[in-house]
Amino acid sequence: MPHKEYLHTLGKQAKAASFALANLSSQNKSELLHCISEQLSLNSEAILTANAKDVAAARENGLTDAMIDRLLLDTDRLSGIIADIDNVINLADPVGSESSSQLLDNGLRLTQRRVPLGVVGVIYEARPNVTVDIAVLALKTGNAVILRGGKETLTSNQVLSDVIRKALTLQGLPENAVQLINSTDRDLVTGLLTLDQYVDMIIPRGGQTLQRLCAEKASIPVILGGIGICHLYLDKMADLSRSAEVIINAKVQRPTVCNALDTLLIHEDVAAEFLPILFKQMSALGVSFYTCDKTKTLVDTQAFEIHSATDESYSTEWLSLTLGVKVVNDIDQAIEHIRQHSSGHSEAILSDDINATCHFMNQVDSAAVYVNASTRFTDGSQFGLGAEVAVSTQKLHARGPMALDALTTYKWLATGDYTARG
Amino acid sequence: MPHKEYLHTLGKQAKAASFALANLSSQNKSELLHCISEQLSLNSEAILTANAKDVAAARENGLTDAMIDRLLLDTDRLSGIIADIDNVINLADPVGSESSSQLLDNGLRLTQRRVPLGVVGVIYEARPNVTVDIAVLALKTGNAVILRGGKETLTSNQVLSDVIRKALTLQGLPENAVQLINSTDRDLVTGLLTLDQYVDMIIPRGGQTLQRLCAEKASIPVILGGIGICHLYLDKMADLSRSAEVIINAKVQRPTVCNALDTLLIHEDVAAEFLPILFKQMSALGVSFYTCDKTKTLVDTQAFEIHSATDESYSTEWLSLTLGVKVVNDIDQAIEHIRQHSSGHSEAILSDDINATCHFMNQVDSAAVYVNASTRFTDGSQFGLGAEVAVSTQKLHARGPMALDALTTYKWLATGDYTARG
Repeated sequence: MPHKEYLHTLGKQAKAASFALANLSSQNKSELLHCISEQLSLNSEAILTANAKDVAAARENGLTDAMIDRLLLDTDRLSGIIADIDNVINLADPVGSESSSQLLDNGLRLTQRRVPLGVVGVIYEARPNVTVDIAVLALKTGNAVILRGGKETLTSNQVLSDVIRKALTLQGLPENAVQLINSTDRDLVTGLLTLDQYVDMIIPRGGQTLQRLCAEKASIPVILGGIGICHLYLDKMADLSRSAEVIINAKVQRPTVCNALDTLLIHEDVAAEFLPILFKQMSALGVSFYTCDKTKTLVDTQAFEIHSATDESYSTEWLSLTLGVKVVNDIDQAIEHIRQHSSGHSEAILSDDINATCHFMNQVDSAAVYVNASTRFTDGSQFGLGAEVAVSTQKLHARGPMALDALTTYKWLATGDYTARG
Repeated sequence: MPHKEYLHTLGKQAKAASFALANLSSQNKSELLHCISEQLSLNSEAILTANAKDVAAARENGLTDAMIDRLLLDTDRLSGIIADIDNVINLADPVGSESSSQLLDNGLRLTQRRVPLGVVGVIYEARPNVTVDIAVLALKTGNAVILRGGKETLTSNQVLSDVIRKALTLQGLPENAVQLINSTDRDLVTGLLTLDQYVDMIIPRGGQTLQRLCAEKASIPVILGGIGICHLYLDKMADLSRSAEVIINAKVQRPTVCNALDTLLIHEDVAAEFLPILFKQMSALGVSFYTCDKTKTLVDTQAFEIHSATDESYSTEWLSLTLGVKVVNDIDQAIEHIRQHSSGHSEAILSDDINATCHFMNQVDSAAVYVNASTRFTDGSQFGLGAEVAVSTQKLHARGPMALDALTTYKWLATGDYTARG
């Protein structure tokens, strides 16, 4: 089947399924999720066998150990995926709630009812757990999904989506509520991005290239996110003795994720005292640096791996044990640097001066702004949302960690008495 | 200046201005709006003179009277525009409100603060009042705007935006908070649509061609809207004696707007009794019809202007005194027709059967769903929102009539005590 026709069929099927899901009760949706959990357990052998094929192919194709680790499923990881479904079951279902209800002067009773978005398209990379995570979150909120996973995990994803589709059938629901694009042809991605007749939202979960592709090619609303060029500003009034731990946590605890620290901005008044101590501690943990010239005059450049920072390096999401460092004259220079280089994800200030912290919170416009905390907290689970669909760095619809609410919209319902407009 | 550089400059200036606006107090913003109102009054002669030039050019270029009426300003209309500013001043300012505040288990105090979007790009057609309306709504919510009006009103828009910019200067605020693209070259529209480095949201206020251009070319989130293929389903249990007035209101009261009725779906059990009466009344008001074959067997085809409906005619937004008519077997066939042909704007059911009305409200997924009321109510003012930025027919961020809230987003603010992630 040619791509266009294939995608059209997927879209049409997804839209039809979405109508069947839209008015399911929360209890029906919980039963469905329980059934998915059960079916994943029952079919764990088939899932692990399929995944072993993906892993073998990945080894053959010379993928790095780190990449293979990302696509690997084992008994423990599969149990973790299944356990996460139980957590989702226990979350409150936002669908059906009504707000802003009122009787208007024109005689209409008006309310806003929360409803599913409809059909969500998700484009992601190697991790097969995303297949289950996203399908479960979408179904919990009454949405149909079209999934496009990474080519390295196609076999795993096919088995996982088949198991979920079987659960849908067992529950008397349309299996096309969850559909996996069964080919890794890249044209199918661009085709999906323009399927606006059927798809209501696109979530790209991947790197900068995928995000830009989606922003530029999609005719469907896209939730950009997951790219974090994160800053921490160390103010002159910070408690230096407690600051190193937070900075190290932000950079080192998990350097490969989007909320890890990329650039440290430090007030000139404390740079001479603090930077040599910090560089020593961080270097011992394997961190290398891209610094301004001023920094180089303050630390022993022979003792550490130090590169010269550029505008480009300051606009890099490191995803590794690399840290940009810049000495600034004052808080406003730090804010100006953030405005210029941030991706709008997470920024932090460390300071005991409440005026400085208020100024920073008011002036910095990113999804998450921290006072005296690590940037590493930007996460649905840490924010108490119970789930995370994505971390949005754009400003419409949802910002920062997106949970179940972000998979819904609302409709206006108005009831009159054969009321005409005057 | 080449287009790219010109737009880059506008974008950079708008972003810089947006930071100055973001933390203005509500009182400062009210003072600004009062000053704009005052300056528009003081400069009314210059505004009307500029508009007269646009009108003269429009006549010379052979524009229709209807189009000229859309771009015309006179003393009364200008007074109306100025009076609307006072209404906006009196609306509540959503910026700065905080919600979901809590102390998390990880020790962070977390809150969501409502903040301006930043920079909003608006592309619109002939009406010069949009220049003032949108600038005022954007400034009320602390946003900068880049305006691209219709070529027929460039002279009017230049004077209007100059007056607003003068008011900004008088209030000690950056005049670049409001910028008008000063050329009617179409390349500037596509250039604006990809200015994602600076612009946070695009609102196209215009017809289908403009909406599609924005959906396809924009790399910035777009609020599609204002296209209404609206349906009314007349159920077999409707009070027929009261239904005609509502149907006529929906079609005739103002046929050129997006919430006007396009297609009447009528239950077969009442079609034979009702349609002849309705056609007679509507025809007398100048309405012509595109109908299904069944309808033609029920009315005097010689007495009315009747065309044969097609899939295409059922997918047409008439914007005129034309009505699609289809006889359906039951409510589900009506819902199915709506799902296939609706633009997701406004749909209505007329029925005294509460089961039918609940079913319709649950199953129809459009921005506004009415029971026993005209579709003509889908409007920010009728919904009590006090303002209308646009009527969104997409599902993300805002749906249906968009008011001040839709010009804002939120940021997460988290305060710790030198808190690292465990």
